[in-house]
Amino acid sequence: MELYTYYRSSAAYRVRIALNLKGIAHRLVPVDLLAGEHHSDSYKAIQPQGFVPALKTERGDYISQSTAILEYLEAQYPQPPLLPADSYAAATVRSWASIIACDIHPLNNLRVLKYLTGELQVDEQQKNTWYRHWIETGFTALESQVRAAPYCFGEQVTLADVYLVPQVYNARRFDTDMTAYPKIEAICAACNGLPAFDKAKPESQADAP
Amino acid sequence: MELYTYYRSSAAYRVRIALNLKGIAHRLVPVDLLAGEHHSDSYKAIQPQGFVPALKTERGDYISQSTAILEYLEAQYPQPPLLPADSYAAATVRSWASIIACDIHPLNNLRVLKYLTGELQVDEQQKNTWYRHWIETGFTALESQVRAAPYCFGEQVTLADVYLVPQVYNARRFDTDMTAYPKIEAICAACNGLPAFDKAKPESQADAP
Repeated sequence: MELYTYYRSSAAYRVRIALNLKGIAHRLVPVDLLAGEHHSDSYKAIQPQGFVPALKTERGDYISQSTAILEYLEAQYPQPPLLPADSYAAATVRSWASIIACDIHPLNNLRVLKYLTGELQVDEQQKNTWYRHWIETGFTALESQVRAAPYCFGEQVTLADVYLVPQVYNARRFDTDMTAYPKIEAICAACNGLPAFDKAKPESQADAP
Repeated sequence: MELYTYYRSSAAYRVRIALNLKGIAHRLVPVDLLAGEHHSDSYKAIQPQGFVPALKTERGDYISQSTAILEYLEAQYPQPPLLPADSYAAATVRSWASIIACDIHPLNNLRVLKYLTGELQVDEQQKNTWYRHWIETGFTALESQVRAAPYCFGEQVTLADVYLVPQVYNARRFDTDMTAYPKIEAICAACNGLPAFDKAKPESQADAP
């Protein structure tokens, strides 16, 4: 397998964690977003939107969108499971992942921030306030629901943790005050103590500056 | 089952379609977003974020987030399937659903539009341009990938169609020029010819004005 990645892309970070947790042999292929490599014809043949991540599967097929990639990995490599066996428990985990995947992350994407400061002439301070607003709204919802015992859902690492840790990394980059989210902080500390999470960190990547 | 819904919520619309396609007996419980019913303590006990939809399952549990609800329905009520059996094919369908669920819809949510016109003092025209921009970007990606034969993935109705039809409804509401997306238009016409989609339409809902 090959994962097209960028060290600081939180969607790529999610997939790096999952590949490590499941012990799936893979090669990381960095895509230099700063140099505009994602706009190249060769990359768009792999991921037509020019987004990272993209996964080249063991059969040579390409999959886009981290949510789709993570569900694929879960179906093809069920051990260790990243979703509880019970459908309702799995729905709870997926609903937490969705708070990040749908309610926070899409609003803070680079293309969105560029639209704000470009087309809408939003200044730097307003942009940072926007960024933190969606994190704070989403984290408030998560903090009231997750278990932190020690992971989001309890003793099993799940997709919720896989989504949460990269989002907390982004929150810290934009100086979000994390003191209101002690459970989220504790979950992150527990996750980052695991080699699968540690190895996936942005600063540990080959393409980190 | 009970689905907490609002006639014009496209996330609720997705779930209404899926419940109909699977023939699952359910009751629709309208939540009046205009009257602020979603901010009430009683609704927040069901869905802590105050978002629709929320599903009350056959066991009396509540599930939030349409993505989680749809995966739950697929796992618990596999017939008719809304995902292809092959994992890679399912990933393709989920990646299309994700373009809508993550790249379009979150940016055009009411709470986001309110932030734009409130905190950021964006005017009506800029707001509408923003709305259409994310639809056009996402629909361009989808148009190049979906099959329209006659549905997104071919002869089988899938989750991709379940996400697409409500998004097209929103696109039309905001006067998006759909002529650039003939495949998407054809898919919608095919879907809307099915009773499951027709019955789920906003204008057919009990809470539609």
